[in-house]
Amino acid sequence: MEKEELELFNQKQEMYRHSMSHILAKAIKEMYPGVKLAIGPAVDNGFYYDFDNLTLNQDDFGKIEDKMREIINKNEDFVRTEVSRDKALEMFKDEPYKTELISELSADATITVYHTGEDFYDLCRGPHVENTKYLRGFSFKINRVSGAYWKGSEKNKMLTRVYVYGFLNKDDLKNYIHQMEEALKRDHNKLGRELGIFTTADVIGQGLPILLPKGARIIQLLQRFVEDEEQRRGWLLTKTPFMAKSDLYKISGHWDHYKDGMFVLGDENKDKEVFALRPMTCPFQYQAYLNEPRSYKDLPLRYNETSTLFRNEESGEMHGLIRVRQFTISEGHLMCTPDQLEQEFKGCLELAIYMLKTLGLYEDASYRFSQWDPNNREKYIGTNEQWEEAQSTMKKILDHLEIPYKIGIGEAAFYGPKLDIQIKNVWGKEDTLITIQIDQLLAEQFDMEYTDKDGTKKRPYIIHRTSIGCYERTLAYLIEKFAGAFPVWLSPNQVKIITVSENNNDYATEVANRLKLKGVRVETDLDNESVGKKIRSAVLEKNPYILVLGDKEMAEGTVAVRKRGSKDTETMSYADFEKELMEKITTKSLD
Amino acid sequence: MEKEELELFNQKQEMYRHSMSHILAKAIKEMYPGVKLAIGPAVDNGFYYDFDNLTLNQDDFGKIEDKMREIINKNEDFVRTEVSRDKALEMFKDEPYKTELISELSADATITVYHTGEDFYDLCRGPHVENTKYLRGFSFKINRVSGAYWKGSEKNKMLTRVYVYGFLNKDDLKNYIHQMEEALKRDHNKLGRELGIFTTADVIGQGLPILLPKGARIIQLLQRFVEDEEQRRGWLLTKTPFMAKSDLYKISGHWDHYKDGMFVLGDENKDKEVFALRPMTCPFQYQAYLNEPRSYKDLPLRYNETSTLFRNEESGEMHGLIRVRQFTISEGHLMCTPDQLEQEFKGCLELAIYMLKTLGLYEDASYRFSQWDPNNREKYIGTNEQWEEAQSTMKKILDHLEIPYKIGIGEAAFYGPKLDIQIKNVWGKEDTLITIQIDQLLAEQFDMEYTDKDGTKKRPYIIHRTSIGCYERTLAYLIEKFAGAFPVWLSPNQVKIITVSENNNDYATEVANRLKLKGVRVETDLDNESVGKKIRSAVLEKNPYILVLGDKEMAEGTVAVRKRGSKDTETMSYADFEKELMEKITTKSLD
Repeated sequence: MEKEELELFNQKQEMYRHSMSHILAKAIKEMYPGVKLAIGPAVDNGFYYDFDNLTLNQDDFGKIEDKMREIINKNEDFVRTEVSRDKALEMFKDEPYKTELISELSADATITVYHTGEDFYDLCRGPHVENTKYLRGFSFKINRVSGAYWKGSEKNKMLTRVYVYGFLNKDDLKNYIHQMEEALKRDHNKLGRELGIFTTADVIGQGLPILLPKGARIIQLLQRFVEDEEQRRGWLLTKTPFMAKSDLYKISGHWDHYKDGMFVLGDENKDKEVFALRPMTCPFQYQAYLNEPRSYKDLPLRYNETSTLFRNEESGEMHGLIRVRQFTISEGHLMCTPDQLEQEFKGCLELAIYMLKTLGLYEDASYRFSQWDPNNREKYIGTNEQWEEAQSTMKKILDHLEIPYKIGIGEAAFYGPKLDIQIKNVWGKEDTLITIQIDQLLAEQFDMEYTDKDGTKKRPYIIHRTSIGCYERTLAYLIEKFAGAFPVWLSPNQVKIITVSENNNDYATEVANRLKLKGVRVETDLDNESVGKKIRSAVLEKNPYILVLGDKEMAEGTVAVRKRGSKDTETMSYADFEKELMEKITTKSLD
Repeated sequence: MEKEELELFNQKQEMYRHSMSHILAKAIKEMYPGVKLAIGPAVDNGFYYDFDNLTLNQDDFGKIEDKMREIINKNEDFVRTEVSRDKALEMFKDEPYKTELISELSADATITVYHTGEDFYDLCRGPHVENTKYLRGFSFKINRVSGAYWKGSEKNKMLTRVYVYGFLNKDDLKNYIHQMEEALKRDHNKLGRELGIFTTADVIGQGLPILLPKGARIIQLLQRFVEDEEQRRGWLLTKTPFMAKSDLYKISGHWDHYKDGMFVLGDENKDKEVFALRPMTCPFQYQAYLNEPRSYKDLPLRYNETSTLFRNEESGEMHGLIRVRQFTISEGHLMCTPDQLEQEFKGCLELAIYMLKTLGLYEDASYRFSQWDPNNREKYIGTNEQWEEAQSTMKKILDHLEIPYKIGIGEAAFYGPKLDIQIKNVWGKEDTLITIQIDQLLAEQFDMEYTDKDGTKKRPYIIHRTSIGCYERTLAYLIEKFAGAFPVWLSPNQVKIITVSENNNDYATEVANRLKLKGVRVETDLDNESVGKKIRSAVLEKNPYILVLGDKEMAEGTVAVRKRGSKDTETMSYADFEKELMEKITTKSLD
């Protein structure tokens, strides 16, 4: 579709979805008369409605859908009327949530109400279809119910939200449902648990995942890969503390601009020293810079760190490995002269792209140039002039490097603009994976300087950057990208050795030990079970290679190899197998 | 000296030291009449005395020592008298600290006072020498003054403590001073800063060291070494969160028995969820065990983790990298059957010994069997029977393995006895580096079980263990052990390449790149400075190898090697040098 045509289509679809939410509410009211209505907007895959005093389970969905069709088939008009606030309060006196909404309007407000047939009306701005008959071709399916706080606040009552998928075209609904089923199979929050990559525990708390041996191994491998690559590119590793006195955050501006997102230890009004867990690494690495006087000869000075950060997020916002309260990230801060800025920025970007390509995530990534919001002045430190300079410097660099970005207003850090590398999860939700930022303000806050060639003191430019982003989040994307079938070099276990009978145990152990000497991660299954059963269980674990060793292999010094994704077994000499395997590992092959 | 003789000597020395502290107080009172006296005990290198209203600097030390000798030379008697509390209060009415001490005694207490000459007396239990003339041969030297809170509490006034080294034998004093001077050169808290291994920042806070690139590199190398060795020995890596809800610590017993040592986030009386930073890894790794039902076939199950822990220590207790508020440790928990316990305990001990030997610290270590204190019942969970069983099990294993331990009463963890591997720093202060513990109680608290061969549910034994101990502390001991001249494999930089003139820059870069390809850490100094100056600076950095490259080396493809500790330069072919270097690195040579 052309752009304009698409826009019209989307507007129409939204109007239909919204009209359908009234049909849902009407159906529910008829079937469950004690229910109270909250709100019911259109969303980008259909619509939902929040109800109080409603308990549903999956078995009820079909009956509700039938009732909705019955209402649609009555060809009732959607009728708009305007009423005064007093009249509206009278009309909705039995609906406490509507009453609350109306009460918040000014006394002289004109309020619109939509009737659907004679017996149902809802507080609503519209627009709607004129008659329910237009909804006949609309494709919908109740998806699920979940709890949702009234007005989204934990302090309010938990209501029942009924989610409905809804599309103008039948095929769109079908495709969407298929897509969701596929996503569910890859969802890291489900698959990651099934594969024993991570788990959570109620007694520990939300947003604090436990990485089980398989997940911890992948993160260890990623971390070593990143640290080694950074070292090769001239980054100097630091290891700074995870907490500091409030004094540090007062200088950096976090105390004024980020305190709500931080875990604070102690009470400012009572305790001599108040500490806070760090939400970012910047002010800590700056202390390393400040440890000795710096000259232009020291620049660019590139500090990297495998850094653990903490963010005090609401419990309701947590999601698997993607939204967490504690995470570990490859953070770095680079101090340089103005002359070096573009070259160093480019270096950071090249590093990030190299990481994404190596991990197979590059094709899923897009760029966002995150700018400040001048209408939200209090969110940022620095002057307007400083912001304009920083943003125009960054724009010049991005344009010069020909980076295809979209702009995100109000997405900047409180101290400067960012280039964010965005990535979508299987559900289509976009998050930032990697960020590269230009900062002039914190060097000022911390009085960081260097002596230039002419002997004068100058402020360095600072680039804040991540090279792979948060390890937990990266692991989540990798689980979803590969549906748990990780590239060989990243697989928690690389080779599973299965014996045909007890006779072959010694040979299996010998093969395992030869591979282990090469640094390969190997498990042997010497259980007294059928080969078929042992293979099935090894396939479920998504092992890249399964070796089946029987008398023939033992006699000939060969291995029968079953590669992941194949149902066939190929017999190879041990040496050939080892060669192929080591090639995949050392090249970090994505196959 | 024989043991008994030594004991008598020590008693005598302590009496002399204590007598000397009266002489110091008398000297100070004569020289600074406004001073108020607190207390003045003997310590194991001499004695000290705490004074109020006294300001001293190093220049005053000689004059005070002279005054002390003058008093000694008066041949005054030390005279003991017994007085009532009221009499004592009257005698010390001008000494508020003495008055406070006397007031704390019961009204009918008999109090002893020692006079030294007619004009000085002190509240004291004695014993003392009979006459100051006996102190003539006593060797002493005022060492330093420092602040010390009255009664050791931050709530009280800060007094001035005068430390004096004091020994019966002149040679002992001389040796001790020499030893202290040597220690100071090695002191990690001084040398570690000078070498750029770590620093601290007031705005971050005490006990939160910043590891600069050299220190972070050593910890990275240690961590990889430990994780790889543990992996080889069958340990499964986990990565668990650094904080949890109070719920977890209530089950583990930390909330009741360890809360004062923990950083708590939030207020139990106000907040819905209260979190705390973890002081130990145990309850977190147990959640991994509890993630699925376990059978005897899963045991022994060995979990290791490079784990960051937090301890809420008082600011005054902090020391360099040894006493810190946040540290990273190689922690592990091993679940096993009773049959497996001794073998697994032995495995943990062998791992620890292997680590210590590889690092060159084994000869400095000693064993402590840390037991509970039955007279301090409330410090521990579990029943008397459980403690007796756990300790006798551990004793049996230790005796069977022929481990030469001393016993530490009251040094157990709150959940079980420990084998602690103790190590002393350059100042002679002993700390625990590694610990291996047997625990039956926490498996019960967390309802951990496994299905045995006969189908019944049983509790596993748990071994808590560290394999190298806390990385920061280990780094501190390594700095002191090697006086900053780390073994080649652990050196932050391994080879420093120095050019004779600009002509040799390309050759230097080529040699550097060849070494880097082998994974060697190399720095080049191509500055336009004299070779002598560049060598001096490279020697100060304690580089294991310095290569000096001039026209001759370039023409012949050789390198002139200056090894650490030698003043000579040896010319070798590049290949021979690389071979020698790689040999040292791969064997983790201590030379």
